[in-house]
Amino acid sequence: MTEQKTTNIILFSGDYDKAMAAYIIANGAAAYDHKVTIFHTFWGLNALRKDEPYNVKKGFLEKMFSKMMPRGADKMGLSKMNFAGMGPKMIKHVIKKHNAMTLPQLVEMAQEQEINLVACTMTMDLLGLQQGELLEDIEYAGVAAYLADAENGNVNLFI
Amino acid sequence: MTEQKTTNIILFSGDYDKAMAAYIIANGAAAYDHKVTIFHTFWGLNALRKDEPYNVKKGFLEKMFSKMMPRGADKMGLSKMNFAGMGPKMIKHVIKKHNAMTLPQLVEMAQEQEINLVACTMTMDLLGLQQGELLEDIEYAGVAAYLADAENGNVNLFI
Amino acid sequence: MTEQKTTNIILFSGDYDKAMAAYIIANGAAAYDHKVTIFHTFWGLNALRKDEPYNVKKGFLEKMFSKMMPRGADKMGLSKMNFAGMGPKMIKHVIKKHNAMTLPQLVEMAQEQEINLVACTMTMDLLGLQQGELLEDIEYAGVAAYLADAENGNVNLFI
Repeated sequence: MTEQKTTNIILFSGDYDKAMAAYIIANGAAAYDHKVTIFHTFWGLNALRKDEPYNVKKGFLEKMFSKMMPRGADKMGLSKMNFAGMGPKMIKHVIKKHNAMTLPQLVEMAQEQEINLVACTMTMDLLGLQQGELLEDIEYAGVAAYLADAENGNVNLFI
Repeated sequence: MTEQKTTNIILFSGDYDKAMAAYIIANGAAAYDHKVTIFHTFWGLNALRKDEPYNVKKGFLEKMFSKMMPRGADKMGLSKMNFAGMGPKMIKHVIKKHNAMTLPQLVEMAQEQEINLVACTMTMDLLGLQQGELLEDIEYAGVAAYLADAENGNVNLFI
Repeated sequence: MTEQKTTNIILFSGDYDKAMAAYIIANGAAAYDHKVTIFHTFWGLNALRKDEPYNVKKGFLEKMFSKMMPRGADKMGLSKMNFAGMGPKMIKHVIKKHNAMTLPQLVEMAQEQEINLVACTMTMDLLGLQQGELLEDIEYAGVAAYLADAENGNVNLFI
């Protein structure tokens, strides 16, 4: 009997294209029967934000971060050639034209494939994000949980 | 008998300095008898572009991406301190002065060391890149091939 | 008897937030009894610079790099939302408010936990950095030393 392989991705980046890459690898690994976890930290948490505004009481700095950060996967910018938002529009056009999946569709597929989507509680705290602002069925954990998975992992990536 | 170690690098970035780091690690690993694969995806594909223009029929968006993206390893910018192209010039000066290898030389060395240079077909499609635009002796594959290598890999990196 | 697990992080990035992530993972892994190494290369070397100026003879290009690069962990910018330095100030405010650790404190903690902080000699040479400019108790090594650690590593990350 062979043990189930595992893929553990830290998604640090808040870029649309990098998050796409993370979710494509994750969905691929899940299709190959890996146990897959995406640990969202820092700007990567934006991929898990709901796209509607959510009414929560926040301090001033948290409010600023909250305003400045993109609300949800669909709003994120590109790591390269962002051109004031034109780049993501182009990429989305191209994705549509090739019948490829957009980032929100990739996130949805990940949830259907039971990929563990984890939000890093420490950076949520730092950036002033609250559980109600994030998608449903997310797990909340810290670096210790990540290490427990990754130390026996087959494919560990920081994106 | 020990099994051959393997190094699997995903080169996502289109930055000159990050691609240098990827190729230095890859060439080092090959020198230590690892089986090495560099899987080029998204902007990392630019490291594999031929430096002469290549006449292909493309749609409008693909043409725009194609124009805007650097043609080949030598044209890529830095991840930091790009200063409208001055940074890469400085780095290249410094590389020359220290008898270090430039990125195109590192790519050539990788081919001599029989490192598998793989182009991600899905992102080639998205960005409208065609096989004739890329270097010779490249392999073409998707995320499944990457995972098959990486799940038994020793050193897996996302750059 | 189980072998000691190892975590090997390449810190390539010179961003405050990415360096924080690297050092948080590293300190976490050390707390869980991993043998931990952070291999600082390219802009990641800035995390190891002393914050006072250091009088060394350098060539013109090396002097320019040296001037332009941040001197020490505390001076580094954010990967996102840098806003001419306002971003890091906000993050530092938020860190303080939540009693979290700043990057210089995380570096200090790493040294107390006997994490191997390695400076990549090849890129020090390229960027014109000298040993006297970096923190005490740093190791100096190249890609071969990194690979020797990483090929048997449990958690290998490129940040």
